[in-house]
Amino acid sequence: MTPKEAMHLAIAEGKKGAGFVSPNPLVGCVIVDRDFNLLAHGYHARCGEAHAEIQALNAVADKSRLEGAHVFVTLEPCAHHGRTPPCAEALAKLPIQSVTYGLLDPNPRVKGQGAALLSKAGKEVSEFRELHNELEELCEIFLINQRRKRPFVAMKVAMTLDGRIALPSGSSQWITSAESRAQVHYLRGCYDAVVAGVGTFLRDDPKLNARDPRWADKPHRVVLLDPEGQAITKLEGSQLLKVRDPSHIYVVSQAQKPSGLGVHQLQVEIQGGEFEPSALMQALQAEGLQSLFVEGGARAYTSLLRAKLVDRLFIFIAPKVLGEGLVWLHALGVESIDQALCFQDVRVTTLGNDVFCECSGLRG
Amino acid sequence: MTPKEAMHLAIAEGKKGAGFVSPNPLVGCVIVDRDFNLLAHGYHARCGEAHAEIQALNAVADKSRLEGAHVFVTLEPCAHHGRTPPCAEALAKLPIQSVTYGLLDPNPRVKGQGAALLSKAGKEVSEFRELHNELEELCEIFLINQRRKRPFVAMKVAMTLDGRIALPSGSSQWITSAESRAQVHYLRGCYDAVVAGVGTFLRDDPKLNARDPRWADKPHRVVLLDPEGQAITKLEGSQLLKVRDPSHIYVVSQAQKPSGLGVHQLQVEIQGGEFEPSALMQALQAEGLQSLFVEGGARAYTSLLRAKLVDRLFIFIAPKVLGEGLVWLHALGVESIDQALCFQDVRVTTLGNDVFCECSGLRG
Repeated sequence: MTPKEAMHLAIAEGKKGAGFVSPNPLVGCVIVDRDFNLLAHGYHARCGEAHAEIQALNAVADKSRLEGAHVFVTLEPCAHHGRTPPCAEALAKLPIQSVTYGLLDPNPRVKGQGAALLSKAGKEVSEFRELHNELEELCEIFLINQRRKRPFVAMKVAMTLDGRIALPSGSSQWITSAESRAQVHYLRGCYDAVVAGVGTFLRDDPKLNARDPRWADKPHRVVLLDPEGQAITKLEGSQLLKVRDPSHIYVVSQAQKPSGLGVHQLQVEIQGGEFEPSALMQALQAEGLQSLFVEGGARAYTSLLRAKLVDRLFIFIAPKVLGEGLVWLHALGVESIDQALCFQDVRVTTLGNDVFCECSGLRG
Repeated sequence: MTPKEAMHLAIAEGKKGAGFVSPNPLVGCVIVDRDFNLLAHGYHARCGEAHAEIQALNAVADKSRLEGAHVFVTLEPCAHHGRTPPCAEALAKLPIQSVTYGLLDPNPRVKGQGAALLSKAGKEVSEFRELHNELEELCEIFLINQRRKRPFVAMKVAMTLDGRIALPSGSSQWITSAESRAQVHYLRGCYDAVVAGVGTFLRDDPKLNARDPRWADKPHRVVLLDPEGQAITKLEGSQLLKVRDPSHIYVVSQAQKPSGLGVHQLQVEIQGGEFEPSALMQALQAEGLQSLFVEGGARAYTSLLRAKLVDRLFIFIAPKVLGEGLVWLHALGVESIDQALCFQDVRVTTLGNDVFCECSGLRG
């Protein structure tokens, strides 16, 4: 196994924790013996449980093979006592030869300290020089949380080839294929909460839960963006309340209203008819929501895009046309083509007969 | 080489004639010896020149190896004297063992007669049982011409992720990447004429020629759809006229106007403000235009889609959003999601940072 193969495998391992590790990062670890034969791999599976390094170490059956072994881990091993003891200390005690990490931990409680601790213990420590984009992508939620001090924002749009998300009547069931809808149910669970505007809630009475068996034991948190406070009185009897615990519902409004339902009500200031974006982000992060999956409607999409608050965009495009209906964005203040908001790094595939397009955040 | 590999290669050969064979079909041919070693391949390169079978035969250096050889050709060999002598006769005279063709020629002057002639001459003749979709796609222009008695209609749309083809001002340069635009210049040449609505002509003063070196010696035919007869007086001094011979310009209107420019003026009846679609198709086919590449605008797209006159759709999607602007379709009369016009067989890839999506015609 080459170092690159080892780090690739560590990244693939790390991804297995998606949806369960918040507010921690996704981390994967691979251990190879002195001759670079694979010894073990592991990943951080759930917040509060063992980190990736410890999972990998536990998977080494014959500990004698750790003599001179090499550890590849996607993120610098932690040096602080959090929910679990520091991984750098655990590694320092072992007869391993080297530790290669993918990214330096941006968390100021760790940054460089894990590496220093290992180095001091005589291990060869280095930051991996390749796969940088893949490593950053694995860690993207955590990196946005740490660097921007706000939740990560993913946006999902389901539209036709002529850019319609619904007929003029609001009807949109179903524009996309069963395969696309299954993918949405998977993606919902990858984030801490699904976010929808009050218009979508009032019109569609959606469940917005993650109906994928992988999320069976995960709470289905949902955030309703409700600037005018129309949602609270409509929650009783709604599908939203039926399929989840009220404590997993967050209604964001300008003012709180008595509800007696046990849902969270967050107060966020309004500016020009919309929530002040950074206040909204702060309020949601203060509730422990480190990543958001925004499903519309146009008002929510537009207000977040205007504030450049989008870190990943998923667009499902059904190969059909409606000719008229709702579009997914309102005016952004773009006055010439070169002012268009541009996304980065497009990936595209098909899902059933739909096009599934994924972009990373806005350029610039 | 297996029969399937031979037919695959024949299809790939046939594609090389794209843009040059109209009104003939694209055809490719592969000859293997008695032991299925590749002997030669060929394709129909240009209308009036040798057919694929003859090109392949000419490429066999050692004719003695034709003894017991097998011929794979994408379309049934012709049996009639057209611009060239019948291929079936040429093959019948050779000591080959078998002829496998991809599709039966739908042309009533050929259909089954080429196969019968070869069979009568003692050759094993059979229709190939695999790669049916690939074979039909190679031949799609010819098949639509023969089966529907009208030109093949390809449509090209260049839009943003929010479905906009231009800003409210009409500005659209450039929504898509240089790679996408290069692909458009290639695609234009694959068809007999580029088609644009008068609105696009008046607003953009476009060249609409195929600026790809592969089409250097091909006439750049263009059709202007001009229901109200606004184009003729604006042609003088236009880019359209500057970059091409006037005899390659076709202006379709309800009534002819004196122009003195030497352009073709076609008269087509108007119904409900738009050209009667089948009359439009007949008028264009009567001019020898067997395939059209429609580049907009919304009025042209909508009127053709309403009449279900689209056989292939190319959509270039730039990973950017404008928030407002022109859309590419007007109302189609769709009243519920299940009435949406659905395209078939989606293929998708990236071109630069754009998404390039290709669909075959409408379903049903």
